[in-house]
Amino acid sequence: MEALVSTVSRSCPFLAKTPVKTLRRLSTLPAALPAGHPAPAPRNALLASAQKCPVMGTALAVQSSRAISTSAKCPFAAAVDAAVPIVGPPGAAAGFGAEPPMPNPPAFVNGPSAGRAPAAKPAAAAVAAAKPAAFAGAFDYEAFYQTELDKKHKDKSYRYFNNINRLAQLFPTAHTGTGEHVTVWCSNDYLGMSRHSLVTENMKATLDKYGAGAGGTRNIAGNAQLHLSLERELADLHKKPAALVFSSCFVANDATLSTLGSKLPGCVIFSDASNHASMIQGIRHSGAPKKIFRHNDLAHLEELLQSVDINTPKIIAFESVYSMSGSIGHIKEIAALARKYNAITFLDEVHAVGMYGRTGAGVAEYIDAMDEIDIITGTLGKAYGVVGGYIAASAPLVDMIRSYAPGFIFTTSLPPVVVSGALTSIRYLKTSQAERSAQQLHTRDLKGRLDALGIPVVPNPSHIVPVLVGDAETAKSVSDELLYKYQIYVQSINFPTVARGEERLRITPTPGHTAELADVLVDALSTIWRERGLKTVEDWAAVGGNAGVGTGQRVEQLVKLEDIEIPAGYVPSHESVTVSASA
Amino acid sequence: MEALVSTVSRSCPFLAKTPVKTLRRLSTLPAALPAGHPAPAPRNALLASAQKCPVMGTALAVQSSRAISTSAKCPFAAAVDAAVPIVGPPGAAAGFGAEPPMPNPPAFVNGPSAGRAPAAKPAAAAVAAAKPAAFAGAFDYEAFYQTELDKKHKDKSYRYFNNINRLAQLFPTAHTGTGEHVTVWCSNDYLGMSRHSLVTENMKATLDKYGAGAGGTRNIAGNAQLHLSLERELADLHKKPAALVFSSCFVANDATLSTLGSKLPGCVIFSDASNHASMIQGIRHSGAPKKIFRHNDLAHLEELLQSVDINTPKIIAFESVYSMSGSIGHIKEIAALARKYNAITFLDEVHAVGMYGRTGAGVAEYIDAMDEIDIITGTLGKAYGVVGGYIAASAPLVDMIRSYAPGFIFTTSLPPVVVSGALTSIRYLKTSQAERSAQQLHTRDLKGRLDALGIPVVPNPSHIVPVLVGDAETAKSVSDELLYKYQIYVQSINFPTVARGEERLRITPTPGHTAELADVLVDALSTIWRERGLKTVEDWAAVGGNAGVGTGQRVEQLVKLEDIEIPAGYVPSHESVTVSASA
Repeated sequence: MEALVSTVSRSCPFLAKTPVKTLRRLSTLPAALPAGHPAPAPRNALLASAQKCPVMGTALAVQSSRAISTSAKCPFAAAVDAAVPIVGPPGAAAGFGAEPPMPNPPAFVNGPSAGRAPAAKPAAAAVAAAKPAAFAGAFDYEAFYQTELDKKHKDKSYRYFNNINRLAQLFPTAHTGTGEHVTVWCSNDYLGMSRHSLVTENMKATLDKYGAGAGGTRNIAGNAQLHLSLERELADLHKKPAALVFSSCFVANDATLSTLGSKLPGCVIFSDASNHASMIQGIRHSGAPKKIFRHNDLAHLEELLQSVDINTPKIIAFESVYSMSGSIGHIKEIAALARKYNAITFLDEVHAVGMYGRTGAGVAEYIDAMDEIDIITGTLGKAYGVVGGYIAASAPLVDMIRSYAPGFIFTTSLPPVVVSGALTSIRYLKTSQAERSAQQLHTRDLKGRLDALGIPVVPNPSHIVPVLVGDAETAKSVSDELLYKYQIYVQSINFPTVARGEERLRITPTPGHTAELADVLVDALSTIWRERGLKTVEDWAAVGGNAGVGTGQRVEQLVKLEDIEIPAGYVPSHESVTVSASA
Repeated sequence: MEALVSTVSRSCPFLAKTPVKTLRRLSTLPAALPAGHPAPAPRNALLASAQKCPVMGTALAVQSSRAISTSAKCPFAAAVDAAVPIVGPPGAAAGFGAEPPMPNPPAFVNGPSAGRAPAAKPAAAAVAAAKPAAFAGAFDYEAFYQTELDKKHKDKSYRYFNNINRLAQLFPTAHTGTGEHVTVWCSNDYLGMSRHSLVTENMKATLDKYGAGAGGTRNIAGNAQLHLSLERELADLHKKPAALVFSSCFVANDATLSTLGSKLPGCVIFSDASNHASMIQGIRHSGAPKKIFRHNDLAHLEELLQSVDINTPKIIAFESVYSMSGSIGHIKEIAALARKYNAITFLDEVHAVGMYGRTGAGVAEYIDAMDEIDIITGTLGKAYGVVGGYIAASAPLVDMIRSYAPGFIFTTSLPPVVVSGALTSIRYLKTSQAERSAQQLHTRDLKGRLDALGIPVVPNPSHIVPVLVGDAETAKSVSDELLYKYQIYVQSINFPTVARGEERLRITPTPGHTAELADVLVDALSTIWRERGLKTVEDWAAVGGNAGVGTGQRVEQLVKLEDIEIPAGYVPSHESVTVSASA
C-alpha cells in the first residue's frame, strides 16, 4: 500500500496527510452508516470515504469499469475526516429521518438498485445483463446510450452536478453534500428573494390554507384565484392586457413560439444567434423557417427581414439580458425594425425581470420600451426567487396560446403555494428599490475590482460577471478549486452553453454579497490566476482578444449611477464604479 | 327597465328575485371596491354584480362585442347579494392584502390593462387599436388570433376555467371566486395527499431551511441533496437503477421521447391511439416516424411491429391508466411483444403512481411487471399531491436524457420545498395502504350506485368514473348546474380531450369522498338526468352503445377486493361492489 500511496498522494491531499496506518485500518473497518441505509453499503470505511471524494466518488460510480484518470487534481482535503462516521447531511429537513449518505454523490446514479444494479457496479453492464438483446446482432440499446455518454466525456461536455444546498437563513451560504459551508456566487436567485421572509411566510400560510399541490390542470380543478391574481399582476407589471403562467419559462418560450410559429400562416422566425435553448427548441418545434441573425447585429437582422416578403407573418425572437455573456439586446431598435417590416417581437426578459426598471418589469421598462414589444416572457424562478414562467401580451394572443398550446393545457398547474410566493415577490419588488440597488452596486464594485487586477471579465452592461477562462478542463478545475479550497461555489460554464474556447466562470453578485465576501472571492481568483498562470486581460489582448476581453472596448453599465439608491454610509470597496475591460 | 327585467328574469334568478327599484339604484351607485383595486373599476354597482355572474361576467369580458346568447340558463343566485360590497375572496392568503374582486372571473382576461385596454372593452379591438398594421393590406396579427379563437367558440371547444380554490382543511371542499363552498369531485389529488399534514409540515420546515426556490438549473446551483434523494427514492420505487426529475411529467414525456426518438438511429415509435398529449408532442418533436396502434389493440400493435425491420430501433409508448376513459394498458402483453421485436417500452404511469401496488409504484407493480418495462414515467402532482414529473430507467438511459435533453438541462430545477413535499408523500404512500384502500372502496361504491340507477359510467377497471353525456354543450351545462345549483364541481370533458360525441363528466372519488358526499352527488346526477331526460345506459344500448356504455360488457375492477384493506365497520352504501355497465 505504501508504494501506491506515495504515487497517488502527490495529487491527493487526503492521502498525503493521512498516515498509511490509518488508511490500512480504514480499509478493514466496516463502513459506518446510519440505520436505514439501503444496501449495498460500501465494503469498508476507506471506500466510504472515497465515495465522498469528488474525483474518486464519481469515478467509482460512473467509471469503475474504465481506467480511472488521475490527471484531475483533487483539491479536496480540509473538510474530510475519514475517522468521523458518515452521517446524513446536516441540512436534511425535519421529518425526513436519516438521509442515506450521498456527499458529493455521483452525478446521476441515484438508484439504490435493490437487487438489481449495485451502486458501485458499472451501470451499463448491469442493465445490459438485466435486459439482453433479443437475438444475436440485434440493436443494443444500452450500448448505444453508453456511446452517446462517451461522446460527452470525450469532448469534456459531460456535466457533474455539484451538491449545493442553499441555506435560507445564511444567504448566500450553502452546505455541500458533506455539510461544509460554501458561499454561492453563481445562483440566479439574483436578489435573494427565495429567502425573503415575506415570501416564505406567505407560502407557509398558503400551504396551510390551500395545501401542497394544485391537483389538476388549469381547466380541471387547478385554476384558483391565486393563479388569476398572478396573471393579472404580471399583465399589470408589463403593462399588457393579459398574461399566462406556465410550469417554467422554458415551457413558456417553447409552447408560445412553437404554437405561434406553426399557426401563423407561412410564418418566418428571426432569431438572435445567442438565444436561449428554450427559444431554439420552440422555433424548431414550430416547423417555421428560421433565420438566425448574428448576436445583436441590427444590420444583419434587417438584411434578413428584407429577404422575406413583406406580407409574410414574421416573429423576431430575442432577449433583453443574455445570460452567459451579460450583453443586452437592442430592444428599441429591433422594435423599430419590426414595425418597418410588419413583424411581431418576442422578448425574453428572464434574466431581467425583477432586476431592472422602477417596478422590476425588466430592461424594456428601464429604457421605456415595454409598449413597443408584442410578447414579453419572464420567469418566476430567478430574481423572483420561486419557480415558473409566463408570457404577457395582447389578450387575443394570450388567449390563443391558452387555447392551443399543449404544453399549457395538458399539465398540472403550478401549486397555489408557488403562486403565492411568486405573487408576494413580484408585489414586493414592484416598490422596493433596495435589492436592485444593492445588486447593481455589488456588480459594479466586483467588476471594477477584477478589472483593476487584470482578471478578465467579459465586458457587458448588465449584472452578470463572466470571468473568461477559455478552456473546458481548466474552467472546471478552477471551479473545483474554488469550491474545495476556498469554499466558494462558482459553476464553470462550458460547451455547449458557451462556445468552445470561451469557457468561463459565471459570477452573479446579489445584495447578500457584501464587500467582505467579495474580498474573499477576489483574493481567491487573484491567487488562482497567479498560481496557475491563467490568461489576464493583457494576455488576451496580446492574442487579439477573446469573447470581447482584451479588445479595448469599454462598456458602461446599463443602470446609471443616478438611478441607484445608494444607502447612507455606503463605501465602495473599489474607487471605480464604472467598469471597463480595456487592455 | 321593467320590460327588460321581465324578459330576462325568466332565465336569471338574480334578476327574478331582485326588485326593479334595487336594480335601478345599483345602476347609479358607484361600484364598491376595496382600496388598491386597479383602474378601471366597473362603471356602477350593477355592472360590478354582473361581473360576478358566471354567464354575464364571461360574456361582458370575452364577448361584449358580439350578441350575448341568453340561451344558457343561469342557475346562479343564492350566493349573490348585490347590496353587499364586493370584498376579496374569503380564501385570500394572509399577507396579500385585499384581492381585487374576480368572482368567477372571465376565463383569461386578467390584465387590469391600466391605460390600455379596459377590461370590459372587446380585447381584440383594443389591441388592434394599440398596434395598427404597418400598412394597408399588411398581415393583421390580432385579427388572426381572434379568428383562431372564434373557431374554438364555434366548435364549442373553447375552455372557460372555473375559479376553484381547494381548501386544505376542508378537503374535498373548495371555495369559488365568490367564496361559496363546493365539493370538488374531479381533482387529480386522488388521495388527498396535497393536504396531508406530514407533507405540508415538511414543506414548511424546508421553506425555513432552504427557502422558496432552487435558484438555478440542476447544473448551476440548483442541485441539492433533496433532488438527489428524490431521484434515488423514485428509482427505488420502480426498482430501476436511476431516475430523473423534471418540471412536470408533460416535460418528462416530451423531453424523453423527443430525445430518445431523435437519437436512436432510424427509430420508429409505436404509440397507443389514446396516448396523452405530452407523449404525442414528444413523438412529434423527435421527428421519428410514428405508427399509431388502436387503443389497447395488441393484434394491431403486432401487425405494425412486423412492418418494420427487426434491426430498426423501436419504442412502444403507452399508458397504464388512461385518464379520460379509465382503461388500463396491457402491460405484460406489450412487454412481451417488445421482447419479441426487440423494441423498448415507455410506460406512462402518471395516473397510477401512488394509487396501485403495495408501495404505490403503479399498475406495473400491482401486476408484478415493473422489471419488464424499460422506461416508467410518473408525476408528483396527482396522487402524490405536489407538482413535477420523472422518468425511471436504466442508468445509461437516464444519464443520456440528463445529458442531452434541453427541457431538462436548461430550466430552473424544482424548488427544494416542492421536492421535500413530494419525497414525504412518496415515502408515506410506500407503506400506508389506507388511502389507496379508501379510494378503491369509494370508487367501487360510486360505480355500483350509478350503475344501479342507469346513469352511464364508461366501463373501466380503474379509479376513474367517467359519466357519459355525449354532447359538448350539454356536458358543460350539466357541469355548470352541478356547480351553481348543487355546489358540486365536476368539470366537463369535451373535444379535443375526448372524441366528439363522447363528452363526459370525469369523476374522481378520493378517500375524502364519504358516503354522505356520494349521496349528494348521486342524488344530483339522478335529478339532472331525469329532469333533462339525458341518455341512460338503456338509452345508449338502444342506439348500439357509445364509448363502451350500453354494449353489455362487464369490466371488473383491477384491484381485487381481497387486496383492499377494508376498515373495521365499513358498510358499503351500495350492495354491489363490482361494477358493470351492462344494459
